[in-house]
Amino acid sequence: MSYNLLKGKRGIIFGALNEKSIAWKVAEQAHEEGAVFTLTNTPIALRYGNINDLATATNSQVIPADATSIEDLSMLLDKSQQILGGKIDFILHSIGMSMNVRKGLKYDNINYDFYHKTIDISAISFHKLLQLAREKDAINEWGSVVALSYVAAQRTLYRYNDMADAKAMLESIARSFGYIYGRDKKVRINTISQSPTMTTAGSGVKGIDGLMDFTERMSPLGNATAEECAGYCITLFSDLTKKVTMQNLFHDGGFSSMGMSYNAMSQYTKGLNAEVGDDE
Amino acid sequence: MSYNLLKGKRGIIFGALNEKSIAWKVAEQAHEEGAVFTLTNTPIALRYGNINDLATATNSQVIPADATSIEDLSMLLDKSQQILGGKIDFILHSIGMSMNVRKGLKYDNINYDFYHKTIDISAISFHKLLQLAREKDAINEWGSVVALSYVAAQRTLYRYNDMADAKAMLESIARSFGYIYGRDKKVRINTISQSPTMTTAGSGVKGIDGLMDFTERMSPLGNATAEECAGYCITLFSDLTKKVTMQNLFHDGGFSSMGMSYNAMSQYTKGLNAEVGDDE
Amino acid sequence: MSYNLLKGKRGIIFGALNEKSIAWKVAEQAHEEGAVFTLTNTPIALRYGNINDLATATNSQVIPADATSIEDLSMLLDKSQQILGGKIDFILHSIGMSMNVRKGLKYDNINYDFYHKTIDISAISFHKLLQLAREKDAINEWGSVVALSYVAAQRTLYRYNDMADAKAMLESIARSFGYIYGRDKKVRINTISQSPTMTTAGSGVKGIDGLMDFTERMSPLGNATAEECAGYCITLFSDLTKKVTMQNLFHDGGFSSMGMSYNAMSQYTKGLNAEVGDDE
Amino acid sequence: MSYNLLKGKRGIIFGALNEKSIAWKVAEQAHEEGAVFTLTNTPIALRYGNINDLATATNSQVIPADATSIEDLSMLLDKSQQILGGKIDFILHSIGMSMNVRKGLKYDNINYDFYHKTIDISAISFHKLLQLAREKDAINEWGSVVALSYVAAQRTLYRYNDMADAKAMLESIARSFGYIYGRDKKVRINTISQSPTMTTAGSGVKGIDGLMDFTERMSPLGNATAEECAGYCITLFSDLTKKVTMQNLFHDGGFSSMGMSYNAMSQYTKGLNAEVGDDE
Repeated sequence: MSYNLLKGKRGIIFGALNEKSIAWKVAEQAHEEGAVFTLTNTPIALRYGNINDLATATNSQVIPADATSIEDLSMLLDKSQQILGGKIDFILHSIGMSMNVRKGLKYDNINYDFYHKTIDISAISFHKLLQLAREKDAINEWGSVVALSYVAAQRTLYRYNDMADAKAMLESIARSFGYIYGRDKKVRINTISQSPTMTTAGSGVKGIDGLMDFTERMSPLGNATAEECAGYCITLFSDLTKKVTMQNLFHDGGFSSMGMSYNAMSQYTKGLNAEVGDDE
Repeated sequence: MSYNLLKGKRGIIFGALNEKSIAWKVAEQAHEEGAVFTLTNTPIALRYGNINDLATATNSQVIPADATSIEDLSMLLDKSQQILGGKIDFILHSIGMSMNVRKGLKYDNINYDFYHKTIDISAISFHKLLQLAREKDAINEWGSVVALSYVAAQRTLYRYNDMADAKAMLESIARSFGYIYGRDKKVRINTISQSPTMTTAGSGVKGIDGLMDFTERMSPLGNATAEECAGYCITLFSDLTKKVTMQNLFHDGGFSSMGMSYNAMSQYTKGLNAEVGDDE
Repeated sequence: MSYNLLKGKRGIIFGALNEKSIAWKVAEQAHEEGAVFTLTNTPIALRYGNINDLATATNSQVIPADATSIEDLSMLLDKSQQILGGKIDFILHSIGMSMNVRKGLKYDNINYDFYHKTIDISAISFHKLLQLAREKDAINEWGSVVALSYVAAQRTLYRYNDMADAKAMLESIARSFGYIYGRDKKVRINTISQSPTMTTAGSGVKGIDGLMDFTERMSPLGNATAEECAGYCITLFSDLTKKVTMQNLFHDGGFSSMGMSYNAMSQYTKGLNAEVGDDE
Repeated sequence: MSYNLLKGKRGIIFGALNEKSIAWKVAEQAHEEGAVFTLTNTPIALRYGNINDLATATNSQVIPADATSIEDLSMLLDKSQQILGGKIDFILHSIGMSMNVRKGLKYDNINYDFYHKTIDISAISFHKLLQLAREKDAINEWGSVVALSYVAAQRTLYRYNDMADAKAMLESIARSFGYIYGRDKKVRINTISQSPTMTTAGSGVKGIDGLMDFTERMSPLGNATAEECAGYCITLFSDLTKKVTMQNLFHDGGFSSMGMSYNAMSQYTKGLNAEVGDDE
């Protein structure tokens, strides 16, 4: 089902790795909705994923870029405008990485070079992108920029580690830059706080199965999928949400507003009883 | 511009009084987006406004109903399904009234009968509507219910009076019922926290001009209009936001995320200088 | 251990029923900290509890009052000032009751007379108390008023029912009146959002054991006890927190800032495994 | 007035520069409340301020340390325990610096080396301190750590620049580490979000006068002073707040819960009238 919501709009989509990626789904739906866009990811990610299939399917070009590099981002913005034939209307930032998580370094034993890298990749890359776009005046008035975040920015989840701090900073950047870019050029900037999602990145997190079972039972509508997140992104890129900015928007089936559900508690109580059983 | 976002959907729209009303704009846009719906308001409001023009323009019927009356709401739900030919897909609740405000009774000198009435009309009416709809199973799975709120639910604005408490309760009802209706029937329930708007209700508030000047200069994108709010409602009624529930969503040009803007401060400082002038 | 933090201060404490009550612990500690105060509860509660033991132990008088009655509250404020020899410095509001909960009426099947009663007792009583105190100028400058709340005001917990809406409204009243009373008389008004607590009221809630096990394992410091809550109240009544107002303060061992803890997840996962076992 | 609230407690206080500093006031009051502590600041700050007067007055030793250096922080923790005769009970982190602000680089034209430095000094220093303390087991059970923050972490204020992002990250670190340190050692970690304050740092901010006038008139109790902030810190270091953790606590006279006050609007409206005057 498509609505032509993005007809005539030009975009840049960061972070599509493979068909499980949220960014992948966003690209597919943006294409269906009439947008043209470029795809970008790091050279390494491009090697491991199959983004070329996506490029073919959506009739778009892939531009390799390291999102922490001013030069690469600058080239990306220039080239995208050139390829697409004008200023950009929407951008999806779906980027995050923690070497501390990858290396299994716990939050009370982190490596500070990795910590800076986590922040650089997962948060400051967003600022660099916006500062460059602003400098180049690369985004059309009423353009829309969305970055993907997670509830860990507000509430601690064990094992999410320094990514929580990166997401908190990412959401702050959306507000800080949202003020400036909104005031000067009417560009809106928001973050979407998405349910835990079984992407390639997500499935690497230890214990993600248990967590997703919990959030599924806590959320009255269940976890939001990557496809559903893409649909929500489309609404934020469309002209129907022009006055929404500087917001962190939960797309999580209701999880963020739940204290305890009947379903999750029933499951939890089985654990209590199981324990009682263990004691016998 | 229309997208067919609500094609085939049936709705009920509360609170359209005249062409300034947010509900009026929602009706117009819902009609353009392919929805069919009934319009409702209190018998008194129907006499003062010109809702019949809207009914004609949108090819819809008007059903008078007092939103605090179980009987009226029950009749409204039954009749709407009958007229529209099936279960309901979306509802807009745009209802609020404070006799304390109308009578100029300040918040530290309120009348408690009026206070209960404020709560009954502005908040509990939402619960009654949902409880009845749930009982009658009147809303389709993945249906969407939106109530209009205001930032006074989180932050005190002088003169907003007991409406602040009513809005806080309204948002709580959206969460409380959102859990149940989501879990059982996949119905999503959200509130939109809209900029101050020059509706007939809004223009009656003393000092609204000054406040709107302030929020206009504070908000990087300026105040959101009634038309823009309607556009946002459409996205929430559409199938693209199925996993958004139990949320209070700010539609305010960024105001809610601002501490102080350059524009508002420049204006404020003129006041400081003016005062210095007064002292001379 | 006592510090004379409330030396010379006069207070009114609502809601002490028996030695499990938070209000009871507040009275004990306020007494140790040098305060004088009156105790109050409804006539019925006074009959069922053993508040006279507390009155004797703290050398204070009990004044029966229905917190929904203007007359009773008026008498209470007058009599308390008379007994204590001057204006009031602090008040604890620890009042809440839902007939819907008591009668087992679920949130999607509530009785609206009960709903209004829940709001009247659990939220509007706070407004009445403040409006009367303001009218009578019964509270000293820099006085401190605290009401007890619960995280259900922000996040839905099944079975908490219409009390969630009442707590949301209570917190809103604290803000709305906190603005006025602060501006005019420097009186500060806050709510404390306390862990679930095994008071007589709490222990009546179905499934409270399971919930408290969950919150205990989620909270890095464990659930906060009634005694600990009393200590926190003392700090808010003291002169050391004079500029804290209109806040909802979580006293919950960290629960409100948690998304998922290792301990709670371990327990939850046992439930998952138990379930797997059940299927075999 | 003192209460012996910190009798027998040992602390470390970061950030006292001169008698205007919040940290300075905390040291004075902690001393009055019976605590012993060490004072620390960067070698440069020690040269410009007059911390030795404070050390003499509070009978404490000054330990120069760069809060971004693992070596310095390690030495500080070791030496403090040695001097004070045991493990630490409380720590105040009052550290923040942005070269972008100092150099007048606007947020949409920042230098990224400076940005990393802002984060390193103003946020990551807090993590380093906590990680080292945890590693060394340098804090007693039920110890209390407080960092000073600002509402810019939630709402954008023009000119606050990259410090907003640093404060957002700082508050996230308080939550992330608060979980771990609470679970393992019962240590509580909070941030205080303080009113704008006329410290040496504050007075360097361009336009601080206008902002403080605005927040003064917005806040029902007026801006909180450095002394008052110190009093609030004392309560958080005391045994009366043992179950408060992972919180950001507003100490701001009510500002954070205000949307618009009568006093601020009166002033603002003068600005509007002044403008009208300009037009004539």
